[in-house]
Amino acid sequence: MTSSPGLPSTLVGTGDLFQLMRDGTPRTRGELAALSSLARSTITARVDAMLSSGLLEPVGEAASTGGRPPTRFALNRRDRVVLAIDLGASHASVAVSDLSGQVLAETTVESDIADGPVIVLDRVSALAVDLLASLDRGPADVAGVGIGVPGPVEHATGRPANPPIMPGWHDFDVPAHLARQFDGPVLVDNDVNLMALGEYVTSWQSAPHLLLVKVATGIGAGIVTDGRLLRGALGSAGDLGHVQVAGAAADVVCRCGNTGCLEAVAAGPAIAAKLRAGGLTVESSQDIVDAVTSGDIAALQAVREAGRDLGSVLATCVNLLNPSVIVIGGKLSEAGEYLLAGVREVVYQRSLPLATHDLRIVGTAVGSQGGILGASAMVIDAVLAPGAVDEYVARRIA
Amino acid sequence: MTSSPGLPSTLVGTGDLFQLMRDGTPRTRGELAALSSLARSTITARVDAMLSSGLLEPVGEAASTGGRPPTRFALNRRDRVVLAIDLGASHASVAVSDLSGQVLAETTVESDIADGPVIVLDRVSALAVDLLASLDRGPADVAGVGIGVPGPVEHATGRPANPPIMPGWHDFDVPAHLARQFDGPVLVDNDVNLMALGEYVTSWQSAPHLLLVKVATGIGAGIVTDGRLLRGALGSAGDLGHVQVAGAAADVVCRCGNTGCLEAVAAGPAIAAKLRAGGLTVESSQDIVDAVTSGDIAALQAVREAGRDLGSVLATCVNLLNPSVIVIGGKLSEAGEYLLAGVREVVYQRSLPLATHDLRIVGTAVGSQGGILGASAMVIDAVLAPGAVDEYVARRIA
Repeated sequence: MTSSPGLPSTLVGTGDLFQLMRDGTPRTRGELAALSSLARSTITARVDAMLSSGLLEPVGEAASTGGRPPTRFALNRRDRVVLAIDLGASHASVAVSDLSGQVLAETTVESDIADGPVIVLDRVSALAVDLLASLDRGPADVAGVGIGVPGPVEHATGRPANPPIMPGWHDFDVPAHLARQFDGPVLVDNDVNLMALGEYVTSWQSAPHLLLVKVATGIGAGIVTDGRLLRGALGSAGDLGHVQVAGAAADVVCRCGNTGCLEAVAAGPAIAAKLRAGGLTVESSQDIVDAVTSGDIAALQAVREAGRDLGSVLATCVNLLNPSVIVIGGKLSEAGEYLLAGVREVVYQRSLPLATHDLRIVGTAVGSQGGILGASAMVIDAVLAPGAVDEYVARRIA
Repeated sequence: MTSSPGLPSTLVGTGDLFQLMRDGTPRTRGELAALSSLARSTITARVDAMLSSGLLEPVGEAASTGGRPPTRFALNRRDRVVLAIDLGASHASVAVSDLSGQVLAETTVESDIADGPVIVLDRVSALAVDLLASLDRGPADVAGVGIGVPGPVEHATGRPANPPIMPGWHDFDVPAHLARQFDGPVLVDNDVNLMALGEYVTSWQSAPHLLLVKVATGIGAGIVTDGRLLRGALGSAGDLGHVQVAGAAADVVCRCGNTGCLEAVAAGPAIAAKLRAGGLTVESSQDIVDAVTSGDIAALQAVREAGRDLGSVLATCVNLLNPSVIVIGGKLSEAGEYLLAGVREVVYQRSLPLATHDLRIVGTAVGSQGGILGASAMVIDAVLAPGAVDEYVARRIA
């Protein structure tokens, strides 16, 4: 091993070294050498490359130990920006974040997903260009684009896969369409997956096994295990809406054609139908939340009962996945503790003691912004990964 | 970047380079250079280190392109060995494998897990020493030890966590006990997790989302996602036995104290009890398999019905995890197609079309050897990982 400065130095590329800087803490070359076991000459060369590329910046000096005080460096979070897009059935949110995931600008408009991919993607592209301009940035400053859509996605290709509420989107090459306008990779995922990732990176990094459940017009889940999204073979993991609820009336027909599905008993439309049968004027999930907030007893009962049905399915998820936290999000979670109480009641009754030993069941910390935050985090994870950073640096100093 | 031979060379340490050799294919230095984009001088230094350590060995010469023909190198699979141990309720299997996972010697004895950790571990240690001696190897030749136990394990520490059928094992430091006798890391996991891993590495590497279900006295599952075991927050992931079966009689009391659990309706004891009520003399899972094999109609029906109950729970797993293959193992899977038929019937009825698009539901390929193969694979993955190989090489050439 005569040609390299010792074994440990061969372990760490520029991107590996950069991982030590991702937390944003300023460090000197000496501190990096101590953390990485790399030779000082290697550190110097790699730090110089990252400085030249703009990915690191000097941020002041450390105390001198005699002689010229050493310079501290940190991640230059604004070297480039990330585009984060969250498409819903009837809205589109577009945000620009820095390389630490902090949102610099954001806008939300009404947008019908059924307008089809070209219209919708061109709409959000125009919004993104305006947002970038408002920050004095352009499409070439974009390190990557993350986009969440309300349906299953083949993550490897970024193409929606038979999405039920997205007419015209099946197999559409979303990355190719957006790559014509913006630099960097374009990553596409299911919106609930990104909500789970957003919740995880902002609030639960200490709990790397997280299940996020979105309860609204439909019901879906995003699963984080060991800090990574679990997408499954075809990207449909987390599809809880059509799981059969133990004890649910077998005659409740679901829109999928089966009976007793979770969505058919516990999603917004099912709760609204039940309340209308009792004489209340309730149409949307928002109406249900309003009825609960105003203290309507029938609404409280119906939401709590929906929580129990949800809990019955989540008890299975707890035994199967052993998560450390379940986050309940989506419009109906705004009904507050009534939904959560029903969930907790059944999960703690039906799950194994070991699986619920440290389990927390909580409301969302970031609310409707989860999708944007997750889209940004997905891109940052990809463009600041060790191999990608080597390329990032190489391209910028070429 | 003047001190390193170019950007790509900084990406790959000795261990990273070694990953190219793990498939066992012999390669020349030139072929490694082409595959890795590393400079020839770097390749030479790293290959030399791996040759000195014994991890690589020369295996003949490639065709000359003029001048001295270049030497080919390959993983020296017998440089060191792996101890793989599979503990069941009433048996212990011990095997020695090479670094490619091939079993070189194996033995199985009756062993009551309730004898407690010291007696059982000393028993398998003695067996392991004998096996090693039969191969002219000693404890210092052991690269690592993998051990599966019939209960939940906190994987990070290797300590069993409140295992219901392992009296005396709770929180016992299994790695420390075995490390007194053998070299290398000692890794402990649940036996069903290791069956899943064994099935995956030997038969399903093309399908990195796999669910293995063991159906015997109890019912449990091991989950592989993206080629890695999913263990969950406390190592209890895959615990399917006490999931509530939709449609199961609510008055079936399980040994866990809840009602309607999968084990209470579909595991060996439940099937045996049903058959005894019909007048058959059936005690064990083996008796059930024998009755099915001999064509007893009641046994066929009972096993198929158990398959349907299992399928009802697995349909939920399919929606949640989107696996590409479900493997049914354990003693009752020896009843052949009747159990599988029941599973398939309900899974394909109750799962979402996208989730079952490419789904295969099959019997086990490696049978009872899955635990041993998984234990070996777990160790090999750990000791031949990039960082570990650097250490492995450094220690052997020190």
